[in-house]
Amino acid sequence: MAVYPTAWQYPRTVNAAIPTRNHWVLTIVCPDQPGIVHAVSGAVVAASGNITESQQFSSADTGRFFMRLQVESSADRESFAAALAPIADTYAMQWRLDVVGRPLKTLVLASTAAHCLNDLLFRQRAGQLAVDIPLVLANHGSLRDLAGFYGVPFESAPVTNAEEKAAFERRVVDAVEEHDIELVVLARYMQILSPELCERLAGKAINIHHSFLPGFKGANPYRQAHARGVKLIGATAHFVTSDLDEGPIIEQNVVRVDHSRSVAELVAIGQDEESRTLTQAVKWFSEDRVLLDGARTIIFR
Amino acid sequence: MAVYPTAWQYPRTVNAAIPTRNHWVLTIVCPDQPGIVHAVSGAVVAASGNITESQQFSSADTGRFFMRLQVESSADRESFAAALAPIADTYAMQWRLDVVGRPLKTLVLASTAAHCLNDLLFRQRAGQLAVDIPLVLANHGSLRDLAGFYGVPFESAPVTNAEEKAAFERRVVDAVEEHDIELVVLARYMQILSPELCERLAGKAINIHHSFLPGFKGANPYRQAHARGVKLIGATAHFVTSDLDEGPIIEQNVVRVDHSRSVAELVAIGQDEESRTLTQAVKWFSEDRVLLDGARTIIFR
Amino acid sequence: MAVYPTAWQYPRTVNAAIPTRNHWVLTIVCPDQPGIVHAVSGAVVAASGNITESQQFSSADTGRFFMRLQVESSADRESFAAALAPIADTYAMQWRLDVVGRPLKTLVLASTAAHCLNDLLFRQRAGQLAVDIPLVLANHGSLRDLAGFYGVPFESAPVTNAEEKAAFERRVVDAVEEHDIELVVLARYMQILSPELCERLAGKAINIHHSFLPGFKGANPYRQAHARGVKLIGATAHFVTSDLDEGPIIEQNVVRVDHSRSVAELVAIGQDEESRTLTQAVKWFSEDRVLLDGARTIIFR
Amino acid sequence: MAVYPTAWQYPRTVNAAIPTRNHWVLTIVCPDQPGIVHAVSGAVVAASGNITESQQFSSADTGRFFMRLQVESSADRESFAAALAPIADTYAMQWRLDVVGRPLKTLVLASTAAHCLNDLLFRQRAGQLAVDIPLVLANHGSLRDLAGFYGVPFESAPVTNAEEKAAFERRVVDAVEEHDIELVVLARYMQILSPELCERLAGKAINIHHSFLPGFKGANPYRQAHARGVKLIGATAHFVTSDLDEGPIIEQNVVRVDHSRSVAELVAIGQDEESRTLTQAVKWFSEDRVLLDGARTIIFR
Repeated sequence: MAVYPTAWQYPRTVNAAIPTRNHWVLTIVCPDQPGIVHAVSGAVVAASGNITESQQFSSADTGRFFMRLQVESSADRESFAAALAPIADTYAMQWRLDVVGRPLKTLVLASTAAHCLNDLLFRQRAGQLAVDIPLVLANHGSLRDLAGFYGVPFESAPVTNAEEKAAFERRVVDAVEEHDIELVVLARYMQILSPELCERLAGKAINIHHSFLPGFKGANPYRQAHARGVKLIGATAHFVTSDLDEGPIIEQNVVRVDHSRSVAELVAIGQDEESRTLTQAVKWFSEDRVLLDGARTIIFR
Repeated sequence: MAVYPTAWQYPRTVNAAIPTRNHWVLTIVCPDQPGIVHAVSGAVVAASGNITESQQFSSADTGRFFMRLQVESSADRESFAAALAPIADTYAMQWRLDVVGRPLKTLVLASTAAHCLNDLLFRQRAGQLAVDIPLVLANHGSLRDLAGFYGVPFESAPVTNAEEKAAFERRVVDAVEEHDIELVVLARYMQILSPELCERLAGKAINIHHSFLPGFKGANPYRQAHARGVKLIGATAHFVTSDLDEGPIIEQNVVRVDHSRSVAELVAIGQDEESRTLTQAVKWFSEDRVLLDGARTIIFR
Repeated sequence: MAVYPTAWQYPRTVNAAIPTRNHWVLTIVCPDQPGIVHAVSGAVVAASGNITESQQFSSADTGRFFMRLQVESSADRESFAAALAPIADTYAMQWRLDVVGRPLKTLVLASTAAHCLNDLLFRQRAGQLAVDIPLVLANHGSLRDLAGFYGVPFESAPVTNAEEKAAFERRVVDAVEEHDIELVVLARYMQILSPELCERLAGKAINIHHSFLPGFKGANPYRQAHARGVKLIGATAHFVTSDLDEGPIIEQNVVRVDHSRSVAELVAIGQDEESRTLTQAVKWFSEDRVLLDGARTIIFR
Repeated sequence: MAVYPTAWQYPRTVNAAIPTRNHWVLTIVCPDQPGIVHAVSGAVVAASGNITESQQFSSADTGRFFMRLQVESSADRESFAAALAPIADTYAMQWRLDVVGRPLKTLVLASTAAHCLNDLLFRQRAGQLAVDIPLVLANHGSLRDLAGFYGVPFESAPVTNAEEKAAFERRVVDAVEEHDIELVVLARYMQILSPELCERLAGKAINIHHSFLPGFKGANPYRQAHARGVKLIGATAHFVTSDLDEGPIIEQNVVRVDHSRSVAELVAIGQDEESRTLTQAVKWFSEDRVLLDGARTIIFR
């Protein structure tokens, strides 16, 4: 009962090339030691699988080994898991097995700025981003029409005091449970989450904020950047932690600017960077390409 | 009577910063000689104008001088033109005076591929592209819904033989007259225009096509590019001439690819380059930043 | 009496295309008002000049107007200056007239890191950078051979206490006077200049330092950047002010890195960015393309 | 008995981070089938090795499987080879085992243009490129000083007729044998090699040439590119084949240009792209990152 036409759907760039039937993505984290690749590839053989993509990384900092595989196999999940179980035990692995291209259940938090939400919804619809957004929650009603335009439910409630904030965050928690949310995206939500909510969403909430070289502290950073005559402005997408704007970095982009740009133009240019950086981070996360190594991310692009 | 919501309109990146009232764009071409800048700036002073942006270029190849000015002035068009008339005569100038940010009347020709049309319509609507698209003409009906989605009239007629082609081109000519069309964009129209139509649209029709390093002649260039293992694929936007794909180049972009990409993925990546390259070319044209110097373009970015 | 071969000199990229005889570069700063371009171009006409390159900017922040012209003219300096004098008076202009391509007298301060000094000396010799470096001063002797390799005099003296620092800075001041130095480049000199020296060199000393998104305060920023998993590292070239690392920014660059890079590799990558960013800043300065508008730079690229 | 100073050697960017002792690079090509990774990793385990870097690719076009591993192991070459022998047999593998960072014996052919040769010699000396260049052969004497400057033997002989060409090519063949040459680099050598020499050097000779979007056939391509107003110019490094300029592509780069560039400037800009593209191709080849899949290259960056 979609309210929008689908005939013209944008050609799917990523998934078009990937047969999703029996195509598995396997991610593994464990203490580094010799023999892991041999053991994992043995499990793949046992599951009658063929490795179509493989990336690995040994972290010298934490001594951990990270691996991401795409495997074509006629095995079902149970058989594949059964093949992995013994080596997972031997090597103290954490692992995750998923289907390539499965849309990730994603909750979006927004406020008044449209650019990030618009890009996420447009790309979901165009088939360029494997997310399923069942709901947008906002602290302001102004983006209701945009969500409706793409056929996505939208709720808003003001967050102007501690009580409203607590209520809003309870609604977030409820929505996460109700929709089996796997990822929460702060698409210029502009509110600091409580430490409790940060804790609860650890490793599955992504935020976006502007970035400059060098960083500017305090209010109105674009005005400060303009006053200093910066030549590059950009954006950083990172995991949400209770340490504001300091979570593990997933993606960053910058764009060149010059002296002729007004503060308003810097803001507009920065917003374009925010959109594409956030969308890229969400895309990698949805494809299980983002792993955490302490305060750092491993990105298997 | 727009069929789409407007409240959430994307922040206008370019035009937001430009006050359009009494903001003029003046472009000039004439034989190069000393004193032109002095004469032009004199005319601006006479029109009580203040120059806010200025670019110029002397072509060593053709001996021509090119200039683009943005001028804030309380003068109306007649006063401004009156101030320019004497020097235009003295220096044998061709000149054009327009209002900064005025949407350009643009006719789009399309076929079955959605990506370029979609980007043009989305950016028109978002206020990021100063065009007014009154009509899309296509040789296939499959993009009707997309145009309707953005509230733009759409007509299609098959072009499978000489007669149908002639009829389609007559419709193009009629539409150009009917809507006072200033620019015709071939958004992956995929048909060769007749020499007569090329002639008639000379300097006001823009085409887009894929490009590779090196170029590949003949059918299925993406397959050839894949077979050769190219590392860069891209797109070229150019003016339409009767010499197919050989008109003056307006903009080019490339993106890096590697051996892991299938032909289908190369096509998808190439389409992204086509969209952004065509949109950029249209944007510059709509802002009067594209001037012709023989077979070359001068782009006053 | 050069100690190095010259036959193989790298083809000069920039200056090769520029006839330096009677080719002038004129830079102007004055309060913005209508009519300036007309007045300046009138003076160029009076000096029988032809404008070959022209850029201008009106600063909304400071109300100042900036202009850079390249002019071909058979006039000598006195005639050109005489033509400018009356309008300079009328418009309260500061102006500077120089010959295109004239090598700038440049003093380089260095320490132990070779990469920036090496790039400057290599490009001076290859004819890619219009500087004339009569002397390198360092607080360490380890780069003596590098300077000698390029035939450039080198002096070093330790800077380990206040007394030595004062002596070193006196030597800098003497060298500036002795060699008519127009630009002092801190090529990873790594010492904070005294406020007095900063003051004396204001607007003619350029420093380079690493930059990250976001910025990292305190010791060992590369280690911090690694710990946080930054995806972009870069460098900023800026004018030296007594406010350490906070002077007007001339140029910035970044490069993409990923999780697989060690701290040592980040340092090496950062050094490449430092070299090319510093060299670019020096190049623009040497071509009179860098103008100051309060704490911001105008770069007429 | 080096004739140049070494104290200031540029910090080694790549190899600094790589302990070369007992660090092996293993490359494998074989028909694709399930189980290869498991078998290879088993051999690594048998050689007491630990995989520090691993990349693989299955070619859908040729059905071949490609793999590149870096392995830390205390095993010597014989033990490692012994561990590989049985699986190499089972899977019909071609494989190569080398030491990470070992300088590749490289012969450079040159003519009169200095830029590519200069970059190769500079980076060899700076420790940024793991090559050992025992000889430069040229068809002109003008680069003798440059080679001498870097302490590299240089021979030249004219190639103006068939006889001289045959003699020159015999000298190439002799030098390849005499110095155990593993790679021949045509650093703007500008002569077409005979089919016999191409055959003999197949897969171990790299050429560089300029590239444009679109390609321009015939003489003076830069002039053609200028006349058409191209916006991107670049370079392609490829393996030498008897099909001139049509060998498998290793690397490509482009840079943006605009209408203001003269033909001479386009040439200079193109030369910078040629240098860095050729150097990058040589670097990847020297690190065993370039594998051939028919007419395509697999680049394990």
